[in-house]
Amino acid sequence: MKKFFSVADVDNLSTIVKEALALKAAPNAHRKLGEHKMLGLVFLNPSLRTRLSTQKAAINLGMDVMVMNMDKDGWALETRDGVVMDGTTVEHIREAAAVMGEYCDVLGLRSFPGLKDRKEDYSEDLFNKFSTYCKKPLVSLESATRHPLQSLTDLITILEHTPSTSKEVDGKFSTVTAKPKVVLTWAPHVKALPQAVPNSFSEWMCKAQEQGLLDFTITHPEGYELDEHFTNGATITTNQNEALKNADFVYVKNWSSYQEYGKILVTGREWMPTPEKLKVTNHAKVMHCLPVRRDLELSSALLDGPDSLVIQEAGNRVWAAQVVLKRILENL
Amino acid sequence: MKKFFSVADVDNLSTIVKEALALKAAPNAHRKLGEHKMLGLVFLNPSLRTRLSTQKAAINLGMDVMVMNMDKDGWALETRDGVVMDGTTVEHIREAAAVMGEYCDVLGLRSFPGLKDRKEDYSEDLFNKFSTYCKKPLVSLESATRHPLQSLTDLITILEHTPSTSKEVDGKFSTVTAKPKVVLTWAPHVKALPQAVPNSFSEWMCKAQEQGLLDFTITHPEGYELDEHFTNGATITTNQNEALKNADFVYVKNWSSYQEYGKILVTGREWMPTPEKLKVTNHAKVMHCLPVRRDLELSSALLDGPDSLVIQEAGNRVWAAQVVLKRILENL
Amino acid sequence: MKKFFSVADVDNLSTIVKEALALKAAPNAHRKLGEHKMLGLVFLNPSLRTRLSTQKAAINLGMDVMVMNMDKDGWALETRDGVVMDGTTVEHIREAAAVMGEYCDVLGLRSFPGLKDRKEDYSEDLFNKFSTYCKKPLVSLESATRHPLQSLTDLITILEHTPSTSKEVDGKFSTVTAKPKVVLTWAPHVKALPQAVPNSFSEWMCKAQEQGLLDFTITHPEGYELDEHFTNGATITTNQNEALKNADFVYVKNWSSYQEYGKILVTGREWMPTPEKLKVTNHAKVMHCLPVRRDLELSSALLDGPDSLVIQEAGNRVWAAQVVLKRILENL
Repeated sequence: MKKFFSVADVDNLSTIVKEALALKAAPNAHRKLGEHKMLGLVFLNPSLRTRLSTQKAAINLGMDVMVMNMDKDGWALETRDGVVMDGTTVEHIREAAAVMGEYCDVLGLRSFPGLKDRKEDYSEDLFNKFSTYCKKPLVSLESATRHPLQSLTDLITILEHTPSTSKEVDGKFSTVTAKPKVVLTWAPHVKALPQAVPNSFSEWMCKAQEQGLLDFTITHPEGYELDEHFTNGATITTNQNEALKNADFVYVKNWSSYQEYGKILVTGREWMPTPEKLKVTNHAKVMHCLPVRRDLELSSALLDGPDSLVIQEAGNRVWAAQVVLKRILENL
Repeated sequence: MKKFFSVADVDNLSTIVKEALALKAAPNAHRKLGEHKMLGLVFLNPSLRTRLSTQKAAINLGMDVMVMNMDKDGWALETRDGVVMDGTTVEHIREAAAVMGEYCDVLGLRSFPGLKDRKEDYSEDLFNKFSTYCKKPLVSLESATRHPLQSLTDLITILEHTPSTSKEVDGKFSTVTAKPKVVLTWAPHVKALPQAVPNSFSEWMCKAQEQGLLDFTITHPEGYELDEHFTNGATITTNQNEALKNADFVYVKNWSSYQEYGKILVTGREWMPTPEKLKVTNHAKVMHCLPVRRDLELSSALLDGPDSLVIQEAGNRVWAAQVVLKRILENL
Repeated sequence: MKKFFSVADVDNLSTIVKEALALKAAPNAHRKLGEHKMLGLVFLNPSLRTRLSTQKAAINLGMDVMVMNMDKDGWALETRDGVVMDGTTVEHIREAAAVMGEYCDVLGLRSFPGLKDRKEDYSEDLFNKFSTYCKKPLVSLESATRHPLQSLTDLITILEHTPSTSKEVDGKFSTVTAKPKVVLTWAPHVKALPQAVPNSFSEWMCKAQEQGLLDFTITHPEGYELDEHFTNGATITTNQNEALKNADFVYVKNWSSYQEYGKILVTGREWMPTPEKLKVTNHAKVMHCLPVRRDLELSSALLDGPDSLVIQEAGNRVWAAQVVLKRILENL
């Protein structure tokens, strides 16, 4: 692996999930692999899970880690070419990325979208330029339109919790894994959030569906359609109740509108998943990438109930990061 | 040891001090103990000594350390249950603590009191909830009402500087340690400070007095009485001069009123310890937890004089943290 | 080496450059040297290159590193003696430095000048006091008047890129290194910047000139004369074109006036180096300490052109820091 930006950077999803679960079973088995290798984590926006889980993954692989909070350190980056830098930006991404590439063997970058200019956000200009100029393998720690470490984590968690059964066929026993129904449902929020998590979740689930691992449905209010680029093959409906029927996993997430870019179109808690609403599911497991607004996005009863996977899901962030870093280290 | 929140988490004080001083003599003797163990330090408030000394202690034990500054990263935590999170808090402590517990083997938490609602502060709700939800051993890096790593440090420093003498009894020589007189005195400040340090110092000194290690006196202006829960057995007086007589150690600290909660009742520098005031002591050693306001809380002449222990005291923070982490690691 | 504050802390410049380049060739050859040694990096101002390169250098030597951002943590230090600390400063440098000295074997300190009071800035009071009170070897990570790790880096980069030729003398072949012409030129900026980088570069180049390693010229507009203390032996001219003639290395940097202290006297981009201006040079290599304001301080055409050394120069920061730390560790 040379970079990790989207699901296109992974070929066989089942294989990478198995590799991640093997790391979960033996976290320190590859401590030599990253020896004397430096990971630089660059945050242009806040982070809790991503910061800690990626650091831990790197340490499990024997890497050294340096963290750079560029939002905090007052280091506004210029990304446009051909401008006279006589304003507020103090350094161009050409130099900043190249310099960090000099100090690190692998880099990670977090940069949220501005949610004002859709074309600019969806060009992924900042991530792409950083990747070009740093000249080192770059891992997305969430970019303007995707959060692939989260999505890989979600896939790991779904497959980990999908029951296998032993089945007799022609007198022979073999293990059969049921194909779960995974539902992504929009949920309310008071702030306008990026589409990065649902875009990314959707493109990973669509590919998993293609590879025969699961069935994927998306439900959201009208006006919240995601960019079609990410939803190829998914069943999409604005009828939440219909979508939830027989679901095995319900993935809850708010996002702002892609059509009316960055806008909040629906208020009120009508779309918030509750135990009542989930009665039509197949005792569905409940997932959320966190942080979650309790009793606004998702009812406390579900979060604290026996079917919540949110904490295990967050825990699995380590194994997603570790398998990605492992594959990158193996190709340095 | 399963957590470190108050003096109640330590049984024999003399034993833990001896263990800490053994670590001071051989800091790297236990580098294998913490191998592949992750310490997460969570700061909801600023820190210098606690941050650095605890990191160093963990590294001495071979642990890996991740630091999370949650005040800086704009990550306001919700602690109340049953509220709809449609305001400014972005994550509930239930999730935040549980997630950090997924990534770490041991956690440390700093959280200052608001100094507005005494009942809330003294309930130690935040620390207790974090401890419950993280499901890992939790070390207080100063909570609303206590600063136990500081108090353990102070006890180490006092016993380290208490002279032992050789004495003949019935023809046999044995080492006898004098029982020192320790005095905690209130001192002026321009800001309203928590009671955490004096509460904690007092409960540690009271227990040390019970175990026959020292005699303990508290002196402060009227209205600055500490919660009785922390001062059981101490001699308490509002006569500073009387308290200082024959003192071997003078521990200087400001705090805001517990009765008129969070208020400053006394201004002016009348209560500031000076060389003149300390003439009635037994050449007392001077202690302060730092940071100290020079010539407001404590005179420069004392801070820079030969009887000041403040720097050695700060240095001993490492051994207090290290003995606590060592005991926790031994019980994982 | 006991501290690293200025060129006076290094005897033979050629020797230290060779030692640094040996570290570049084998970064991990001394991993045992720093084992169980703690480096504390204290930043009173922002940092990217210095922070990352010094961390990496320390890790290459096997040291542990703790970073303390004192600007961020709201920890305003008092440096004056004899004042009653009843204002906004929360801790005196006497205690802060001494405490950090308790936790670390080697310290680094960054502190920019205020650019208001020249006498105060040029006294280097803060650095000197920190050095005195911490009682440990102290490395300047840029002080009020100097940035020695940058200057050592610059010298390494210049000598690394100075061609050697084989020459026959009396029938024997020997390696001869040409003496390059190094030019420091002032360049425009929109903010008033310290003189630390040009002061420091100048004192290192003047000493290198004394030791026969290069020829050194400074050019700047009238009113931008540096303190003579730093420019001893340099050719100084206000004619930029004259200065650039036959230059092998052009070092571009803005600074505010030393005479009219901290003021910007020249605006406009007339002094900005461009390919056109550099036609009179000997295909000069272009250097800048970064961050650089593109097309204000230095033209993009030069920055992105084949003669730019700015990224390699930034990369060399690691070896400058590593050779300094190595020499300090060898003398602990």
